Amino acid sequence: MNDAADGVTIIVFSGDMDKAMAAFNIAIGAAALGKEASMFFTFWGIKAIQKGNLTGDSFFGRMMGLLNRGGIERIGPSRFNFWGMGRWMFKQMLKMHEITPLTELRQTAMDLGVKLLPCQMSMEVMEIKKENLIDGVQPACGVATMLEMAYRSKASFFI
Amino acid sequence: MNDAADGVTIIVFSGDMDKAMAAFNIAIGAAALGKEASMFFTFWGIKAIQKGNLTGDSFFGRMMGLLNRGGIERIGPSRFNFWGMGRWMFKQMLKMHEITPLTELRQTAMDLGVKLLPCQMSMEVMEIKKENLIDGVQPACGVATMLEMAYRSKASFFI
Amino acid sequence: MNDAADGVTIIVFSGDMDKAMAAFNIAIGAAALGKEASMFFTFWGIKAIQKGNLTGDSFFGRMMGLLNRGGIERIGPSRFNFWGMGRWMFKQMLKMHEITPLTELRQTAMDLGVKLLPCQMSMEVMEIKKENLIDGVQPACGVATMLEMAYRSKASFFI
Repeated sequence: MNDAADGVTIIVFSGDMDKAMAAFNIAIGAAALGKEASMFFTFWGIKAIQKGNLTGDSFFGRMMGLLNRGGIERIGPSRFNFWGMGRWMFKQMLKMHEITPLTELRQTAMDLGVKLLPCQMSMEVMEIKKENLIDGVQPACGVATMLEMAYRSKASFFI
Repeated sequence: MNDAADGVTIIVFSGDMDKAMAAFNIAIGAAALGKEASMFFTFWGIKAIQKGNLTGDSFFGRMMGLLNRGGIERIGPSRFNFWGMGRWMFKQMLKMHEITPLTELRQTAMDLGVKLLPCQMSMEVMEIKKENLIDGVQPACGVATMLEMAYRSKASFFI
Repeated sequence: MNDAADGVTIIVFSGDMDKAMAAFNIAIGAAALGKEASMFFTFWGIKAIQKGNLTGDSFFGRMMGLLNRGGIERIGPSRFNFWGMGRWMFKQMLKMHEITPLTELRQTAMDLGVKLLPCQMSMEVMEIKKENLIDGVQPACGVATMLEMAYRSKASFFI
């Protein structure tokens, strides 16, 4: 069983590939040490736990879905994006140095018992449904639940 | 009275609308649970507690004021800004889903006793005067005061 | 001796000048109050402790090194960069208001005993060698070491 007292709570706000990598690495690091680790995916960060299909029903929802299309495989780094070139280059360097790709990092996190919490409000605003999220995530929740996790944790980060 | 031991301290560094929303939502969540919540507005984040009038005396101050003009109503999201289009679209979606706008979030935070602390150094560098800030904020303070808050808190975030 | 129990741990992920300033200011504030302060430089943040020479051996490494060239003196702010203009303007304003420049902030931090920890994985991916880093930094380490610091700290930030 994980040790809650020394846990880590991470708010994943960013939709950037490099920041998502950092977030998963921190969570995995904590879980590997036997600590509780929770990740709360909100705003653009929710992309990291989407399946990658187009989302949205309304005009705005579909536009947002189009801009935000693609799951964890399609997100670029926060710097030097160059219309996708940065993502490619960044991925090549990660590959060359045998750094675990984002999808595997996410799987490792889940295997180690890291809790992935989707933000209810973000799902509503961006018109993302439960079935648009990958399997194995926790039920959608709000700030209160996230804060409860943070209060139980020893360290909390907003990424 | 608020419970300091389980409080939250948020450094609001970003001048982005979506990040300010996230920051206020976390603070409100903590305050609603009866915990102490403090927000320290520094660098671009100070815009979220400005009245919105033009600021600055020197050439640089006025240029910065011009670029940074407008209060909480004028700030755009961190992604998909498209020369203001992103802000409009984002606002439409928030409206459609009846999400509380930023000005109301800020008022709610203040009503719930969230402490809004302006960063002294940022005000000096950006030439923002006390009268350029909204009513009800705490006296301007430095990193030491912010850290004291953070030490009393259970969770701290840099947004 | 620094007091670990009330310390601060800062993950410096960003390569932006203003965010690096905020990070050093928080660490200095904690150290000045006699608390332990650790900064973990990862991803783009590692630039803040580089000497500034070109790095990288492979094609990708050299490209990344070229884009990321220059140490702490070459990094621009996160907003209003305008092809370097923002950095210049920002620096002018800081100078006018006698705000300590980034290189001095870093030196002050080191003088006060702030620990600067380079992220091992980031150095490998970006092909940055030990000799590309400034003197006085701690040995490169991983997430586990950073988390240990965070667990000993009272407040932790991801910047």
